Amino acid sequence: MDILWVLAHPDPCSLNGRLRDAALPRLRAGGHRVVESDLYRMGFDPVLTSADLSGEPPPPGTPVSDWQRSGYREGRLTDDIRTEQAKLREAELVVLQFPLWWYGVPAILKGWFDRVLVNGFAFGVRDPGTGRVRKFGDGGLVGRRGLAVVTAGDRPGALGPRGISGHVEDVLFPLLHGTFHYTGMAALRPHLLSSVHHWPAGQLEREVDRLVARVDGAAAEEPIGYRTLAGGDYDEHHVLRPDVAPGLTGNEAHRLDLGAGSGGDGGRRGAAQPAASR
Amino acid sequence: MDILWVLAHPDPCSLNGRLRDAALPRLRAGGHRVVESDLYRMGFDPVLTSADLSGEPPPPGTPVSDWQRSGYREGRLTDDIRTEQAKLREAELVVLQFPLWWYGVPAILKGWFDRVLVNGFAFGVRDPGTGRVRKFGDGGLVGRRGLAVVTAGDRPGALGPRGISGHVEDVLFPLLHGTFHYTGMAALRPHLLSSVHHWPAGQLEREVDRLVARVDGAAAEEPIGYRTLAGGDYDEHHVLRPDVAPGLTGNEAHRLDLGAGSGGDGGRRGAAQPAASR
Repeated sequence: MDILWVLAHPDPCSLNGRLRDAALPRLRAGGHRVVESDLYRMGFDPVLTSADLSGEPPPPGTPVSDWQRSGYREGRLTDDIRTEQAKLREAELVVLQFPLWWYGVPAILKGWFDRVLVNGFAFGVRDPGTGRVRKFGDGGLVGRRGLAVVTAGDRPGALGPRGISGHVEDVLFPLLHGTFHYTGMAALRPHLLSSVHHWPAGQLEREVDRLVARVDGAAAEEPIGYRTLAGGDYDEHHVLRPDVAPGLTGNEAHRLDLGAGSGGDGGRRGAAQPAASR
Repeated sequence: MDILWVLAHPDPCSLNGRLRDAALPRLRAGGHRVVESDLYRMGFDPVLTSADLSGEPPPPGTPVSDWQRSGYREGRLTDDIRTEQAKLREAELVVLQFPLWWYGVPAILKGWFDRVLVNGFAFGVRDPGTGRVRKFGDGGLVGRRGLAVVTAGDRPGALGPRGISGHVEDVLFPLLHGTFHYTGMAALRPHLLSSVHHWPAGQLEREVDRLVARVDGAAAEEPIGYRTLAGGDYDEHHVLRPDVAPGLTGNEAHRLDLGAGSGGDGGRRGAAQPAASR
């Protein structure tokens, strides 16, 4: 596979750095082409400003999304942004490896989304036939798969379905659903490494094996089954139609693979089954 | 009230900038003391590195949380971090005002969490009697309230309970539950301003009124009723006890105010009621 591997950790000697250092040579030896964005090593600037646009600055008050869109179309985005966009174009699998800080990605990675995934490139693209905006299951990054590789100090149960931190798939909903799925990428289940401050001897080696096996099999994996905008489950206000998983709310309502089903029969099955079905 | 108002938008002429400019004088005139952190204007650096620690750098491989903790205790964190911590100490209400980018906070604000809310200050504090870690409903920022003021291009329904983007309280779960509640702050319901690119004439003025009224009443508001670690609903693995909201998963399982109740009778009430009750 063509893999873009994005790492967001300040310390190359960290557990994250060592995992990456051990996993990538094995993946390459296994035949994958791996391109890296080691954001800290690159000194990537995560702060979106109008300086992302070369030449004439946008007039004050212009919505950010608007000038990013023009900047993309006119080839006026800065080189660091265009380089990352080129890497994304080539990738079949995008791996985001990061420590879970404040139940999300480190700022340097959040800013990679903010600055690189601009309107007209990752989203805001339209179907030439219907003119409809392609998002949620379709978009500028369609055809790619997204895998979050996440290290956490939390014990494993704390990020499980009934854990105090929230289930990892709910905690990462803005990434899995709001970023991967939103731009058309297939969101794979997060690859979680927990209790990272209390690993016994041999655990790092076992985790390297597990990570390499996971990435090796990523092309064949079933992604998280989020509903798509084009699938017809949402109305013109972008709200679930009443007959789709009726009465259900929460992140589960947006999944086809949790027994909630789609419209019609599937929806009625969903109604009979509480969100607890996961 | 003593308010810390954190704004994360690059453009002072943006809708966010204009809202802040209109709301703050009225709040001050109303008797509130408002301290500001305009992160872009301050040039706040959101990238956590070991340079956050003055003097001897931490040995490579030291967990970030560990050296942040020592740095805090030894007074070795950089001045920009200590200044923000001092503002937080004085605040009764922390307002975070930001545009929703990739269904989360802009990188400059994420990095404010990463760098300022360090171990030993915002979390990782222990009860002197029992030695137990104080988190989820208790912690270094207990006694404060947190209010997210969020602008979104999405139409209102898209961020509603059955909207395609996910309910705003689920999308912001990492902030509301994983940051506010985790550090002991009372998480208020997010103040959402939607369809911001399609406001009719007069809408800005109405939104300023609504925002000022919301902040004026923030001290008396009922916060989101997340379960607390000290409340006894979680076991020693930080997983909900089987008799608490039995069978329920998803973010709703961590709330006392959605009919799921606490252990015992409350738990059984929860079992009879699907998560859809919201």
